[in-house]
Amino acid sequence: MRASRYLIATQKETPADAEIISHQLMLRAGMIRKLAAGLYTWLPMGLRTLRKVERIVREEMDKSGAQEVLMPAVQPAELWQESGRWEQYGGELLRLNDRHGRDFCFGPTHEEVITDLIRNELKSYKELPANFYQIQTKFRDERRPRFGVMRAREFLMKDAYSFHINRESLDETYQLIHQTYCNIFDRLGLNYRPVQADSGAIGGSASHEFHVLASSGEDDIVFSTDSDYAANIEKAEAVAPAGDRPAPSQAMTEVHTPGQKTIAAVSEFLGLPAENSVKTLLVHGEPDEDGKSGLVALILRGDHNLNEIKAEKLDGIAEPLTMATDEEIEKAIGCKPGSIGPVDLPVPMIVDRSAAHLADFVCGANRDDYHLTGVNWERDVALGRVEDLRDVVEGDPSPDGKGTLEIRRGIEVGHIFKLGNKYSEAMNANVLDENGKAVTLEMGCYGIGVSRIVAAAIEQNHDDRGIIWPDAIAPFEVAIVTLNGHKSEAVAEAGEKLYAQLRQAGYDVLLDDRKERPGVKFADMELMGLPHRFVVSERGLEAGTLEYKGRRDADKQDVPLEEALSFLVKASPKNSL
Amino acid sequence: MRASRYLIATQKETPADAEIISHQLMLRAGMIRKLAAGLYTWLPMGLRTLRKVERIVREEMDKSGAQEVLMPAVQPAELWQESGRWEQYGGELLRLNDRHGRDFCFGPTHEEVITDLIRNELKSYKELPANFYQIQTKFRDERRPRFGVMRAREFLMKDAYSFHINRESLDETYQLIHQTYCNIFDRLGLNYRPVQADSGAIGGSASHEFHVLASSGEDDIVFSTDSDYAANIEKAEAVAPAGDRPAPSQAMTEVHTPGQKTIAAVSEFLGLPAENSVKTLLVHGEPDEDGKSGLVALILRGDHNLNEIKAEKLDGIAEPLTMATDEEIEKAIGCKPGSIGPVDLPVPMIVDRSAAHLADFVCGANRDDYHLTGVNWERDVALGRVEDLRDVVEGDPSPDGKGTLEIRRGIEVGHIFKLGNKYSEAMNANVLDENGKAVTLEMGCYGIGVSRIVAAAIEQNHDDRGIIWPDAIAPFEVAIVTLNGHKSEAVAEAGEKLYAQLRQAGYDVLLDDRKERPGVKFADMELMGLPHRFVVSERGLEAGTLEYKGRRDADKQDVPLEEALSFLVKASPKNSL
Repeated sequence: MRASRYLIATQKETPADAEIISHQLMLRAGMIRKLAAGLYTWLPMGLRTLRKVERIVREEMDKSGAQEVLMPAVQPAELWQESGRWEQYGGELLRLNDRHGRDFCFGPTHEEVITDLIRNELKSYKELPANFYQIQTKFRDERRPRFGVMRAREFLMKDAYSFHINRESLDETYQLIHQTYCNIFDRLGLNYRPVQADSGAIGGSASHEFHVLASSGEDDIVFSTDSDYAANIEKAEAVAPAGDRPAPSQAMTEVHTPGQKTIAAVSEFLGLPAENSVKTLLVHGEPDEDGKSGLVALILRGDHNLNEIKAEKLDGIAEPLTMATDEEIEKAIGCKPGSIGPVDLPVPMIVDRSAAHLADFVCGANRDDYHLTGVNWERDVALGRVEDLRDVVEGDPSPDGKGTLEIRRGIEVGHIFKLGNKYSEAMNANVLDENGKAVTLEMGCYGIGVSRIVAAAIEQNHDDRGIIWPDAIAPFEVAIVTLNGHKSEAVAEAGEKLYAQLRQAGYDVLLDDRKERPGVKFADMELMGLPHRFVVSERGLEAGTLEYKGRRDADKQDVPLEEALSFLVKASPKNSL
Repeated sequence: MRASRYLIATQKETPADAEIISHQLMLRAGMIRKLAAGLYTWLPMGLRTLRKVERIVREEMDKSGAQEVLMPAVQPAELWQESGRWEQYGGELLRLNDRHGRDFCFGPTHEEVITDLIRNELKSYKELPANFYQIQTKFRDERRPRFGVMRAREFLMKDAYSFHINRESLDETYQLIHQTYCNIFDRLGLNYRPVQADSGAIGGSASHEFHVLASSGEDDIVFSTDSDYAANIEKAEAVAPAGDRPAPSQAMTEVHTPGQKTIAAVSEFLGLPAENSVKTLLVHGEPDEDGKSGLVALILRGDHNLNEIKAEKLDGIAEPLTMATDEEIEKAIGCKPGSIGPVDLPVPMIVDRSAAHLADFVCGANRDDYHLTGVNWERDVALGRVEDLRDVVEGDPSPDGKGTLEIRRGIEVGHIFKLGNKYSEAMNANVLDENGKAVTLEMGCYGIGVSRIVAAAIEQNHDDRGIIWPDAIAPFEVAIVTLNGHKSEAVAEAGEKLYAQLRQAGYDVLLDDRKERPGVKFADMELMGLPHRFVVSERGLEAGTLEYKGRRDADKQDVPLEEALSFLVKASPKNSL
C-alpha cells in the first residue's frame, strides 16, 4: 500500500477521554474513531489488524474440525423465553421491536439459536460430535462502555458451540479447543495464559479463561512457581495452612480502642500485626420460604480479602452476595461494623481456613470502641463451619501441592465452558443413541473476543512512541520510508523497487511515499507500530545501503541494498519462502 | 472436506413456504435455515459460497483503490436527524432504544456515519478523491420479507462511499467502480447487465443498476439489439414515433358502447385495434399552497402501460403518484372511469408521445356507455403538453437511435449512484480547495447485495436436479464420490489419494465418504450443485479409471486414474497452476 493513497489518520495529542493506553494508541494511530458511547468505526489501519486476527482464529478453528456458520444478529424473543434467559438477562440485552411489534434482541450470544438449529438438524448420535462457530458482530448494552474496543457495546466475537452424546465426548472436544486456543494465541504472538475460571452466569461444570498478560489487565491471574497450575483469582483455591493450629498462649482480654475502626488502625493502635487479627463481615443468608433472610458472619484474617464468588456459592448465603447495611448490623449485633467479632456473636458464622488457623488473635468485641486480644478458637469461641472464603495472595501454597503462587494481571480474551445440558434440557434438544433412545445433548461453548484481542495486544506491546505489533497482526509488516522521494527520483525509484520486491516475497508493506518531513514519517510509523522499517535516502543510496530498524531495536543498522530481502527474511521468516 | 464430518443437510421435499426456486434450492441443499421471518442462519454449505462471493467483492474493491473500513451497525439517531432521514425513512428503518433510552437505529445504509467520519478526518482537497467501503450485515425491516435471502431483513451488503472535490472527480470514480462491478460479476461467472436506473429516494444525478439476468427476476430490463444501451424499464425512454402524425381521414362520431369499460372490451366491441385507441388516467396534481390538488389527465395509447416513475417526476403531478378515486372522477368529469376521454375534458391533460402521434383514434366520450371514434388531435381537441409517460415495449426504437429494444427479466444485485452533495450539504461536510476556500464535497455511493448474489446466481443457474454453481462460487469445486468406500479399502484409499492430489493442486474438494447409497450421494452432489464430480468405484479401479461428470454435462465419461488432475485442470483451470 502507498501511504499517499491511504488514510493515515495519526494524531499527536492524547485524546482526553481515553483512559487506557490501548484506547489512546488506537485513536492516535488512526485505527478507530468513536461514533457514540461504546460504538467505534474501524478505520483502514485498524481493520487490517482486526482482519488478521480474525483470519488466524478462523484458520485454527477450521483446523480443529469446527464448521463455520453465520446466525442472524437479530433473534426472536421466543427462543430466549424458552431457555429462560429473556427474564434472567439484564439491561445488557438490547431488546427491540420490529415493525409489527414483535419482540427481538440484538444477540450478545447465540446458545439458543444454535440449540434450536441443532435440535432440528441432528437426529442421531452418528452425527456427533459436532462443533459450529461463527465470527460475528455482537452487541452488549454495557451500562458504562469504556476503554475503547476493550469494553465496547458493539464488538467482533468468535463464538463456537459443540454438541455431544455424552460427557466423555464433551471432554475431548473441550481439550481440543483448549489446544486450538493455545495455537491461536501462539500464532498471534501474544504472551498469554489459560487459567481455570469460574463458570459464572453461563453455568456448566468447568471453564477456562485465556488471558493476555498485561499490567493494565482487570483480572488477577494466579500461577504456581513450580507447576502448570493457573487460575483466575476468582477461582483459585486458598488451601488450609499446613500443620495444626498453634496452642493458646494468651488470655483473652478486652481492650479499649477508641475511634479505631479498620483493621489497619486497630493493628497499629495495638502494635500487633494485621495477620494476627480477624475481620468479621456480615452478609445476607439464604432467604427462607417467606423471602426473609437473616445475617451470616464471614470471618477472615485481617490481611485477607473476601472472595465474593466463593462466598456466594456457599450453602446458606444469599445469591447475589449482599453485605448487611450499618443499620442491619447495629440492630442485630448492637454495635457498629468496625467492632464486630466472633466471640458471642448472635448470628451463624463461617470461618475462612486461614482465620481458623490463628491463635491468640485480635477481633472486635461486639461493643463499640472495644476489641479483644488473645482470642483462641474453641477455648473462647466455637469454631464451627470452616470454608475457603478468601482471595489467594502471593506466596500462598499452590493448590496442587507444587510450589507457591504468584499473581499477575491479565486481560480476558477467550473463555471456554462445559455447558453440560443447561440449554439442551430447557430446549429439549436430544438425539437418538445407539439403542434408539432419546438422549439430551451435552454442550460446550467457546468464545474469543476478536476485537478485544487487538486492544489487549497493544496493552502488552507498546512503548512511549506507540504500538509495537507482533508481526502476525501488524497492519503492515514492513514500512519503507522514502526521504524526500518527491524531490529525488533515485530515492522514489529505489523505494518502489524495494516495495515491489518485498511484496513479491509475500510481505505486507506500507510504502511511505508521502510528502512529509522525515521526522513526521518516522513518528507515524513508530506510533502505528510497524515491526520492520527500511529507510531509503539519497545518502544511503550513494553508499548502496538502506537503513533498517526493528520496532523494538534500540539502534538502526545499514543493510546493503541487494541484501534487504534476505535480511528481512531472517528478521521475519515467511512460510511461503 | 470429508462429507462424513460435515453438515450435509439436504432435504428431498420442497419446503411449502418457499415461493421461488433459489429459496427452495437453498433450503433443500442445506445452505440456509429460517430462524424467523426474513432471518436466516447460513449453514456451512451456504456460508462457503457467501464467503467466496464476499472475497471476490473485497479483492476487486481493493484493486480499485477503495479502502475497507467497518462502521457500527447500530447508529445514533442524531446523525439521521441531521440528514433529515430520521423523519423521511419509513418502517423499514429498525429503530431502537439503548438502556439509557437514547434513540438508535440498526443501519440499513451508512451515508450519515461515513459523512460524519469524513467531515472530521479529511481537511484538504489533497486528500481526495477517497473511497471507503465495508462488507457488513445490514438490517431492513421489510414489511413482507420473502423469497429467502433474496428479500431478507438481515443481509450482507458491500457499501462504498466516495468523496470528491468536484463533479469531474466523482465522474471518474463512478466510471472506475462501474468497471470494478463488471470485473466482480465477470469473476463471479454470472450473466449480468449494467443498466441505467432511476436514482429513487437516495437522490443524485445518475445511477446504474447491475442485474443478474433470470426469468424469475422482478425487474424489466431493456436492451438495444444494436448498441450498448441498457436501462431499467423504470428509466428507459420511449422516444416519439418517427415522422409526422397522419392526417385525419374520419369524422368524429359518438358510438353507444353499453357495458364496455376496458380498452380490450371497447376495441373488441368496435372491431378496432387497441393501439388505435387512447386511455385516459386521472391522477392528483401538485398540491397548492393550501394543500389542495386538482386532477390531471394522463393520456396513453390503449395498448401502453403508464410508467409511474416518469409520471411522478413531471411538474404539476403530486409525488408520490396517486390515482384519482372513482368518486373523484365522477365528481370532476360526470362519468365513470371507463368512459373518460380527452375531448372537452374539464381538467389539464398530459399526452404521451405515442398517443400524440395517433390519428382517427377511439376514446371515451366523457359520458357513461359512450365512446368516440375517428378522433383527431388539434381538429377535435387541442393537443397541449406532450411527455414521455409510458413503459417501453419490445420493438420500440432504442433511445440512442441504434436498433430496437428487447426486454428481459433481471435481479438487481448492485446499484451505483452519483449522490452529489445531498448528504455533504445537509451535514456540512467540506474541505479546503487549492485556494483555501471551503468546498462542499461531492459524493458517490456504491452498493452490492452480497447475500442476494447467492440467490440470484441460483435463479440463473439450476435445473430440475438442483443448483449448478459457477466454479468461482461453488461451495466446493469438485466432488469425489466413493462407492461403497466403507466396504472396499481400495476404493477408500483411491478416494483419499485423489482428494489429497486435487487439494494439493489448489482445488476446493468435497470427498463424499459417507456410508450412503450411490444414488443418495449422486443426488446430494447434484442438488448442492458442485461443478465437477469424480466417482471412484471398484469396477472403475479394475479398469484403472474414474468416472467424471460436469454438472451441466449430459453424459459421464471415463478418465484414466493418473489423468484425473490434468483432466480437471482443462475443465476448470487454476491460476496457481
